[in-house]
Amino acid sequence: MEVSFTAAEIAAIVQAKGTRGATTDVVRRVSALAESGPGDLAFLGNQKYKADVAGARASVILLPADFPGEPAPGQLFLLVDNPSVALARVCARIERDLWPRPAPGIHPSASVASDARVAPSATIGPLCVIESGAVIHERVHLQAQVFVGRNAVIGEDSWLMPGAIIATECHLGRRVQLQPGVVIGSDGFGYEFGGGRHVKVPQVGTVVIGDDVEIGANSTVDRARFSRTSIGEGTKIDNLVQVGHNVSIGRHCLLCAQVGISGSTKLGDYVVLGGQAGVAGHITIGNGVKAGGRAGLNADLAAGSVVNGNPAIPMMLERRITILTQRLPELFKRVGALEEQLAGAEKSSS
Amino acid sequence: MEVSFTAAEIAAIVQAKGTRGATTDVVRRVSALAESGPGDLAFLGNQKYKADVAGARASVILLPADFPGEPAPGQLFLLVDNPSVALARVCARIERDLWPRPAPGIHPSASVASDARVAPSATIGPLCVIESGAVIHERVHLQAQVFVGRNAVIGEDSWLMPGAIIATECHLGRRVQLQPGVVIGSDGFGYEFGGGRHVKVPQVGTVVIGDDVEIGANSTVDRARFSRTSIGEGTKIDNLVQVGHNVSIGRHCLLCAQVGISGSTKLGDYVVLGGQAGVAGHITIGNGVKAGGRAGLNADLAAGSVVNGNPAIPMMLERRITILTQRLPELFKRVGALEEQLAGAEKSSS
Amino acid sequence: MEVSFTAAEIAAIVQAKGTRGATTDVVRRVSALAESGPGDLAFLGNQKYKADVAGARASVILLPADFPGEPAPGQLFLLVDNPSVALARVCARIERDLWPRPAPGIHPSASVASDARVAPSATIGPLCVIESGAVIHERVHLQAQVFVGRNAVIGEDSWLMPGAIIATECHLGRRVQLQPGVVIGSDGFGYEFGGGRHVKVPQVGTVVIGDDVEIGANSTVDRARFSRTSIGEGTKIDNLVQVGHNVSIGRHCLLCAQVGISGSTKLGDYVVLGGQAGVAGHITIGNGVKAGGRAGLNADLAAGSVVNGNPAIPMMLERRITILTQRLPELFKRVGALEEQLAGAEKSSS
Repeated sequence: MEVSFTAAEIAAIVQAKGTRGATTDVVRRVSALAESGPGDLAFLGNQKYKADVAGARASVILLPADFPGEPAPGQLFLLVDNPSVALARVCARIERDLWPRPAPGIHPSASVASDARVAPSATIGPLCVIESGAVIHERVHLQAQVFVGRNAVIGEDSWLMPGAIIATECHLGRRVQLQPGVVIGSDGFGYEFGGGRHVKVPQVGTVVIGDDVEIGANSTVDRARFSRTSIGEGTKIDNLVQVGHNVSIGRHCLLCAQVGISGSTKLGDYVVLGGQAGVAGHITIGNGVKAGGRAGLNADLAAGSVVNGNPAIPMMLERRITILTQRLPELFKRVGALEEQLAGAEKSSS
Repeated sequence: MEVSFTAAEIAAIVQAKGTRGATTDVVRRVSALAESGPGDLAFLGNQKYKADVAGARASVILLPADFPGEPAPGQLFLLVDNPSVALARVCARIERDLWPRPAPGIHPSASVASDARVAPSATIGPLCVIESGAVIHERVHLQAQVFVGRNAVIGEDSWLMPGAIIATECHLGRRVQLQPGVVIGSDGFGYEFGGGRHVKVPQVGTVVIGDDVEIGANSTVDRARFSRTSIGEGTKIDNLVQVGHNVSIGRHCLLCAQVGISGSTKLGDYVVLGGQAGVAGHITIGNGVKAGGRAGLNADLAAGSVVNGNPAIPMMLERRITILTQRLPELFKRVGALEEQLAGAEKSSS
Repeated sequence: MEVSFTAAEIAAIVQAKGTRGATTDVVRRVSALAESGPGDLAFLGNQKYKADVAGARASVILLPADFPGEPAPGQLFLLVDNPSVALARVCARIERDLWPRPAPGIHPSASVASDARVAPSATIGPLCVIESGAVIHERVHLQAQVFVGRNAVIGEDSWLMPGAIIATECHLGRRVQLQPGVVIGSDGFGYEFGGGRHVKVPQVGTVVIGDDVEIGANSTVDRARFSRTSIGEGTKIDNLVQVGHNVSIGRHCLLCAQVGISGSTKLGDYVVLGGQAGVAGHITIGNGVKAGGRAGLNADLAAGSVVNGNPAIPMMLERRITILTQRLPELFKRVGALEEQLAGAEKSSS
């Protein structure tokens, strides 16, 4: 990923509010402050790393406008409103080179049903499978080895990475990004117990995914038992996340890696779930709820709740209880001491 | 998934015990009570939603025989023993249209070893790979992009969905269903530490899966170090579940999403593990054990145990302890008060 | 996996230090002590199973040199330094037959870009995709349906199993083994919130994997936001593990199944994380840290720390607290009793 920008080009890309120092180096890499050297672009995206700026050898550093320090000789500070956003602008430029827009057309090794509809501007990569009745809209990119099942629909400008699988009848919105190995529309986990065995409940619903949704590698979204499992516009889902059947996820949520959402649960908009959190089935999580990593949500939560722990409780309470729990050895001692004192007191008083 | 049934057809399919009201609408969709409208079929599968019946706009509603309410005008109540089972019957009818039985034969894009045995009634979909010595029995359906390794055996009527991977020498029973991305027969995680590095212990066993087993999307089952990893008849496994090497799972178990079973552990029959539960290695879980979601099972459990928490303890005890733990702030206060009282008492008595 | 060894051949393979008893049986299977029968090779790898030796019917049993018992008639004990290592030697022999070295060459069904470089001794299996600029070094084996993205590099003697996916620009070292469905180089989970939506932060870094690394089925490793996500030489990762963007994992670590490592966290060398453990983002875990299964690591840990629980604390303390927590019902009773006693004392003293 060798790149090549002059300091002036970087300043223009990030729309720098001001500068300190100067450099004649050409920027060839983006790197972390502590590991940076000449020819690198570094940035202060997290105050945690403020102390690293002094020692950073990067030729150009993106910093908040109010940053106090001074650059080293031959080093340029670019002052911006938000160094992370500024870096994103630079990376967006690099991104174009990394993933150039592919040429439209269907790779000869792909297997496309005669009655599937593929827009002329779409790119169907090698060894993809598109089943009967599927619809691939304009500028969609199926990178390679992607599966699109019967009557499935892929919205404009969506990008499905290698090995993504979209089962029968599922619908993806526009600009949806699926990382490699994502499975959309696997059967929900539903059985009725009878005669000593689990009898499968047919899962004949579908999955409907809104515009601008992104889903991480090897995550799975089950089709509904009937009607639909839905993921709202703008929601972002990390790797290895499980979304059960008939779940409804609102708009602009963030689900971190390895989260699991059990069947028929409803998440509102702007919900944030930390990594490995789990949500029980048939409950409702209000708008803007935030849950810490590994939290276990097992009951309805009002909009705006901030919770942690398993079972999840308000985060402040959970912190306090965690501390007190670690003081249990002391508490047992104190209670033992009280018991002795009282026993002594009783003896002496008798 | 547009369907079309008359009220009379639905009544016949579900074997209604009785009816209230009537409708002339044609049923075109299955939907949840709260979201239902004219032309919909709804059902009361969970008492949690009883209140939704009154407001439901569905043309036909499946209800338990003892349901007290009355239908709205132009609405039909169908009274049945078990509305969930009744709905399943309707869905089974819809299912036939969704996944029609594919025509037998081998897709020209599939790569099948010359010495693999594929039954004439089997369907090998596009871009599947079948290695040397593999055996595909009658009416098996490999949907697309499925991999079947050397000498692997797939039993009659099994259905392997896109991207499923069966490694060398693994055996699947009859009517096995593998959702997309399932991996059967990956190497077990076994190393001996020596000379400052982890030396791989060859994993030369296999995986044997019984009849009527279903495994969810992107779940993984490791091959045994030697002998076999086994999953008993009728067991159902959800998405993103990990089954370690040399694990033995009994018959008719239910493993919910993201469960992990460590190596060499034995599960009896009819074991139920909630989502994200974890089971330690080299332990034995008795028949009919039930563990809640996120439970951590780290020791043998007698048949019939019902446990929760991490480490898992009897569920009733775990609930009590969870409540008491949340009362720790109060308990610390009470102990503090006792200490003051006693200090005061001592002073006054001296 | 039928094999055939004479007792003498086994003795030679395991470099037996001594023998007790004798057998004329041919060894055809490796099996567990308790399930073993004539023609089987068994071993005592875990003292937990010592009691099983007496009843074992195996023809040959691998035992530690100091094992006290005597073999049954027609049974041979082979005394070795480490029965597990000895068994590994036998399994390594079996392994050769199970996975014979494939013939070099590119399968006609593979899709290989004209400007990709594939070494003559490499094996590219059926339906693999190799994109432009990718480099496949000597003796690499891409088994089937593997994807190697633009400019990616696969080191000498690496083995990528079916469905493994290596995204653009990622680098694998030598002798790397990827189990089926592994995803290397998926986008990191990074967004900036603005205008009521999550704006993607381009993930333009890469993934660099050292020599002798193994990664389990369906595990995912995200590419860096910039610079690199790295996994050190000799580290072994189990199934369904998530490694976030910009994570740095040291050498010779063991990450058990379903572990999750959040973004920008650093693990030292020889770190061991139990199954389903989770590590927060932007923290540093020292060399040789050991964490139990399901542990939640949310702060820096000094080298050599041994922790458990969530949040993770020193293992000994965590055990004690777990026991005391389960005694909370008793503690509440004791405090209640003290309160009554004191109330009584006060009354009587007034």
